[in-house]
Amino acid sequence: MTKNEMRIAILGAKQKLGLSWDALAGVTGLSAEFTCSVCLGMNSMQEAPANALCSALDLPSQVATALQACPMKEWDKTVPTDPLIYRFYEITGVYGETIKEIIHEKFGDGIMSAIDFTLKIDKEENPKGDRVVVTLNGKFLPYKSW
Amino acid sequence: MTKNEMRIAILGAKQKLGLSWDALAGVTGLSAEFTCSVCLGMNSMQEAPANALCSALDLPSQVATALQACPMKEWDKTVPTDPLIYRFYEITGVYGETIKEIIHEKFGDGIMSAIDFTLKIDKEENPKGDRVVVTLNGKFLPYKSW
Amino acid sequence: MTKNEMRIAILGAKQKLGLSWDALAGVTGLSAEFTCSVCLGMNSMQEAPANALCSALDLPSQVATALQACPMKEWDKTVPTDPLIYRFYEITGVYGETIKEIIHEKFGDGIMSAIDFTLKIDKEENPKGDRVVVTLNGKFLPYKSW
Amino acid sequence: MTKNEMRIAILGAKQKLGLSWDALAGVTGLSAEFTCSVCLGMNSMQEAPANALCSALDLPSQVATALQACPMKEWDKTVPTDPLIYRFYEITGVYGETIKEIIHEKFGDGIMSAIDFTLKIDKEENPKGDRVVVTLNGKFLPYKSW
Amino acid sequence: MTKNEMRIAILGAKQKLGLSWDALAGVTGLSAEFTCSVCLGMNSMQEAPANALCSALDLPSQVATALQACPMKEWDKTVPTDPLIYRFYEITGVYGETIKEIIHEKFGDGIMSAIDFTLKIDKEENPKGDRVVVTLNGKFLPYKSW
Amino acid sequence: MTKNEMRIAILGAKQKLGLSWDALAGVTGLSAEFTCSVCLGMNSMQEAPANALCSALDLPSQVATALQACPMKEWDKTVPTDPLIYRFYEITGVYGETIKEIIHEKFGDGIMSAIDFTLKIDKEENPKGDRVVVTLNGKFLPYKSW
Amino acid sequence: MTKNEMRIAILGAKQKLGLSWDALAGVTGLSAEFTCSVCLGMNSMQEAPANALCSALDLPSQVATALQACPMKEWDKTVPTDPLIYRFYEITGVYGETIKEIIHEKFGDGIMSAIDFTLKIDKEENPKGDRVVVTLNGKFLPYKSW
Amino acid sequence: MTKNEMRIAILGAKQKLGLSWDALAGVTGLSAEFTCSVCLGMNSMQEAPANALCSALDLPSQVATALQACPMKEWDKTVPTDPLIYRFYEITGVYGETIKEIIHEKFGDGIMSAIDFTLKIDKEENPKGDRVVVTLNGKFLPYKSW
Amino acid sequence: MTKNEMRIAILGAKQKLGLSWDALAGVTGLSAEFTCSVCLGMNSMQEAPANALCSALDLPSQVATALQACPMKEWDKTVPTDPLIYRFYEITGVYGETIKEIIHEKFGDGIMSAIDFTLKIDKEENPKGDRVVVTLNGKFLPYKSW
Amino acid sequence: MTKNEMRIAILGAKQKLGLSWDALAGVTGLSAEFTCSVCLGMNSMQEAPANALCSALDLPSQVATALQACPMKEWDKTVPTDPLIYRFYEITGVYGETIKEIIHEKFGDGIMSAIDFTLKIDKEENPKGDRVVVTLNGKFLPYKSW
Repeated sequence: MTKNEMRIAILGAKQKLGLSWDALAGVTGLSAEFTCSVCLGMNSMQEAPANALCSALDLPSQVATALQACPMKEWDKTVPTDPLIYRFYEITGVYGETIKEIIHEKFGDGIMSAIDFTLKIDKEENPKGDRVVVTLNGKFLPYKSW
Repeated sequence: MTKNEMRIAILGAKQKLGLSWDALAGVTGLSAEFTCSVCLGMNSMQEAPANALCSALDLPSQVATALQACPMKEWDKTVPTDPLIYRFYEITGVYGETIKEIIHEKFGDGIMSAIDFTLKIDKEENPKGDRVVVTLNGKFLPYKSW
Repeated sequence: MTKNEMRIAILGAKQKLGLSWDALAGVTGLSAEFTCSVCLGMNSMQEAPANALCSALDLPSQVATALQACPMKEWDKTVPTDPLIYRFYEITGVYGETIKEIIHEKFGDGIMSAIDFTLKIDKEENPKGDRVVVTLNGKFLPYKSW
Repeated sequence: MTKNEMRIAILGAKQKLGLSWDALAGVTGLSAEFTCSVCLGMNSMQEAPANALCSALDLPSQVATALQACPMKEWDKTVPTDPLIYRFYEITGVYGETIKEIIHEKFGDGIMSAIDFTLKIDKEENPKGDRVVVTLNGKFLPYKSW
Repeated sequence: MTKNEMRIAILGAKQKLGLSWDALAGVTGLSAEFTCSVCLGMNSMQEAPANALCSALDLPSQVATALQACPMKEWDKTVPTDPLIYRFYEITGVYGETIKEIIHEKFGDGIMSAIDFTLKIDKEENPKGDRVVVTLNGKFLPYKSW
Repeated sequence: MTKNEMRIAILGAKQKLGLSWDALAGVTGLSAEFTCSVCLGMNSMQEAPANALCSALDLPSQVATALQACPMKEWDKTVPTDPLIYRFYEITGVYGETIKEIIHEKFGDGIMSAIDFTLKIDKEENPKGDRVVVTLNGKFLPYKSW
Repeated sequence: MTKNEMRIAILGAKQKLGLSWDALAGVTGLSAEFTCSVCLGMNSMQEAPANALCSALDLPSQVATALQACPMKEWDKTVPTDPLIYRFYEITGVYGETIKEIIHEKFGDGIMSAIDFTLKIDKEENPKGDRVVVTLNGKFLPYKSW
Repeated sequence: MTKNEMRIAILGAKQKLGLSWDALAGVTGLSAEFTCSVCLGMNSMQEAPANALCSALDLPSQVATALQACPMKEWDKTVPTDPLIYRFYEITGVYGETIKEIIHEKFGDGIMSAIDFTLKIDKEENPKGDRVVVTLNGKFLPYKSW
Repeated sequence: MTKNEMRIAILGAKQKLGLSWDALAGVTGLSAEFTCSVCLGMNSMQEAPANALCSALDLPSQVATALQACPMKEWDKTVPTDPLIYRFYEITGVYGETIKEIIHEKFGDGIMSAIDFTLKIDKEENPKGDRVVVTLNGKFLPYKSW
Repeated sequence: MTKNEMRIAILGAKQKLGLSWDALAGVTGLSAEFTCSVCLGMNSMQEAPANALCSALDLPSQVATALQACPMKEWDKTVPTDPLIYRFYEITGVYGETIKEIIHEKFGDGIMSAIDFTLKIDKEENPKGDRVVVTLNGKFLPYKSW
């Protein structure tokens, strides 16, 4: 079973059962964000949460096997077209150098890891319009000299 | 004076005077992140902080004028090469669909604004290695139907 | 049912029944432009108009479900080839900076929203040749400083 | 004098004299939008408005000559990066097929001209936030068969 | 029936019956060039010639319907690879500015329409090697000022 | 002297003296189209017309030398942006396969040469709007088999 | 039968029968290089060799028809990835200008035809390692002036 | 002195002195093709021929130093535009797979080296039009298995 | 059987039987790295190891035939997206010129072969986190002059 | 002083003084590879080695300051053209998936760091031709789940 077949199976079962990512996070014991990224084929999870997820969604064991496989992470376009995703691309373009300046000022020469990394999305209620709060948290990795 | 000439003048003065973005934020009364993005030519600021910045950096009034101009925001490459900036591009690629799923689940059909938007970078001390915490906060904009 | 399957089903039924977008707009209570964009898979609509549309087109309930889903908006080419669509791309290229100058002069630093946005297409009769009138109407979003 | 030198000269004089595009439109007897597009190097104008513009801006006759030359219209990137301009590119992507459907329904097979064409930008005051109204008006050109 | 299915049906029937584009032009009452472009999916024709073509090729009525639909004109590569087609792309590259200079000298600022347009291909016999003569004929469209 | 310096010198002198391409064609004894293409740096000419052209434009002998050099033919963008030139690119896209079909039907397998080739631009007066007539004339080159 | 179906049929039969391109060249009376290029779908051949080839490979007559059709020559990537093919692309990049200089010195302004053209590949035995010798032979085409 | 400055100096001196690549090959004791490629900045030569070349062209010793430096080989476009060079790119596209088939048949799995490689250009006189003969000669390199 | 079908068959059998690349290397008598690259379709192997591999994986003889065929090496994207593979692309970008400088200093003008080449991946245990050690070993190929 | 000015100054001084990267490594106390990468502008070094390097090369203190600045790492082309560098790009393409398979087999899901990373280039003498040995050594970073 490929990651893509796995993804279609999970999204179909999730819609049929009317389960949210939050509910599935309760099943895996992981966050909704990470659980979702594994189901979309962009991360892998351990055997226990994979099995729990398959039980909750009433899916066969090949899905659990596919959830544990190391994914080949691919995306189709260097410039994303979907407006929601594009805005994040735009933020990287507009603020990329700003982020670089501030991180170097606070930490020195190095980068924020995208591997030892977590992502959280919250809803901030606001009378002028609710706000999306995305928190990226990654380990600082200093460049090694040798 | 173009935005690029403004940028070179500011970065040169900042280095000569040994001032940090945090110190300049104290001068403008704005955050270090926003102050930095204006100095790099990716945003504009009002007259008062622009003048204050020029005084602190001992720069002529054309710089203050340039700081107030609406910028043409441009970046050079659809796939950034600098490793620090690339990791943010990669996060958009790996987690773009996850972010879309979770925002739609929490808010419905719409996007997070990149205009009514703030960005904050913090240092989280950690014995296993300090962590970079980037907080993106944007207004949710629902799609209008008509 | 994917958005693409939904689209094929709707376009087929619409052609078979000989219904226009204007007629379908009468069914949904929305404009022809918005109704069309949802049917092509580029927007979502509420349950009531989705059900009404499916009744009018004699289509099953999965189509109504697909009409309500948040779409992944994608288009295939950065430079469109179809001459009708290309002309709009060309207008963005030729007049993009003009639009930017005039909006900044009238509104200050910010953008026109493409989300809180409506689009209307009218026919202006003219003895020298009828004219197409396209009206874009979007909320002005000022850049936030912080 | 190249179109680019002309553009720099005009934008510099306009800023020094504090003149708006609306004021310059009063000088040329043309719209602010068209006047601006000629000054940016994307259109040409006749001798009389070119001379009037140069007088108002206190610029030499080479500028008037350059304003009358047929421009080589060029833009740098197939996907624009500036957020204000990008939104118009996005509208073409999201609504391009919708526009095509509706124009074909109202007019038959053909296109909207981008040459026999006008563009108008208005401010619509609104208590929930002012709105930008862009009106594109182009002659319908039916495909010739032969 | 999609334009592509229509195209495959027509090319198959044409080959089986051994008919030339010239012969099909006799059937439609249009030129071979235009008839061919409609059959390849790049233009539309009226009901009468569409029906005549389907009779001549012994094809069902869906083909006639597809011949009348407004096509989405698409081509796959910005730089064509087929040597015959590439040479026309090369001519645009090598002589594009020359064509622009001469048209502006003869007509003023404007363009040659590719919509109100005809194309003719003739064989010029020549003892040193026959020659291909391609005649492009398009309406001159002057830029409108407003 | 590079081809680009040559080009700038010629276009400057041509404008100063108010000479048309037609007038320069009278000087070189070649067509206006070919003369123009050499002056823009896309072809070379023999010594006699090169010298005649330099005399007429009152330019030094290095220009004549540069006119005789074999050019490196380069153009900047695979998809041209200028609307006049783009329309010719579009014609190649829309009608490329049609041209291929018709040439193969009339001549067999091979191509139209873009080297043993001439180009002519005429004005066809027409009460509904004058028309541009572009005639491409190239030797047919059959593919060699071996 | 498309060129691609023809190609798959031929390569399959060739492998099953264990025939080399040299052996097939003996059948067609053409070179191995040209015979191979036709079978891969990049050239066409006359009826007699096409029929001979089909007999030798025990393939039906549609294959012979497809071998005679004028091909649409397409290749997938502007920069080839296969190392053997890439080296030829690299040679064009590294030696392209050298080839241009030497041909212009020996022949004047013009090009080497890729249509009136033959290609031969030989094995040169050498104790330090055998060598591949590729001979390209094309007619010189001088640029026409007019 | 950069390779580009070296190149300009050599081409200028060569033109001034009216020397051919053949003549310069006589000076270096190398082929015209290799000598030319070094002068264009795409290869390096030893000290003795570099000095001999500088003497013959009356150029200073920095040129000889630059001729000996290992070049960074760069070319500007993946698809070359100059017609002479493009034809070689086209040959790679049309015949790339043919070359691969024939080399594998004659030599097994491996490639033709573009490093242990020579290139020769000859003129073949022919009453129907002279022909360019390009001979590529590279060592066969079998893939190593390990 | 295509290389892709071969690859799917092998990866499926390998997963079903729970065999590692190390175990398969024991079967072929080759390294795990080379064995893996052949199975993924990027190299070929001799008859004996191909047959041994098919026996161990219980696969039919067509797989062994496909393992021996010369592959067309293709990869999909010039900038890889998978983070593991991207880091190697990044290393080429960041250190490419450094590698060039050091190799030229140690060896003179030439390149490291990617054909007469081996690759080895080792695990270096380390209390601060294990390390990946990749050893690339390629023959130095000096540029030939001629 | 920009990184590029720094680079030119260092390469010029290094050539004038005839110093090797090995000799400069002796001065900085770092490896030749890392020292070289800093001098080319792709890494930063501490104050002490920066000062030592400037003394050895007889360069002013601005160079030492520039050596310590965090670089914006940029490279010009996604597909490198220089043959030496291209071979490393090719290795990533041919062996990228192999490397991924083997690392996942040995380490689990994660990547090799390109930040906590060292690079070493050695010469392996060999009677059949010396070999280049490149050793990449990076920390394994497991994906975090959360």
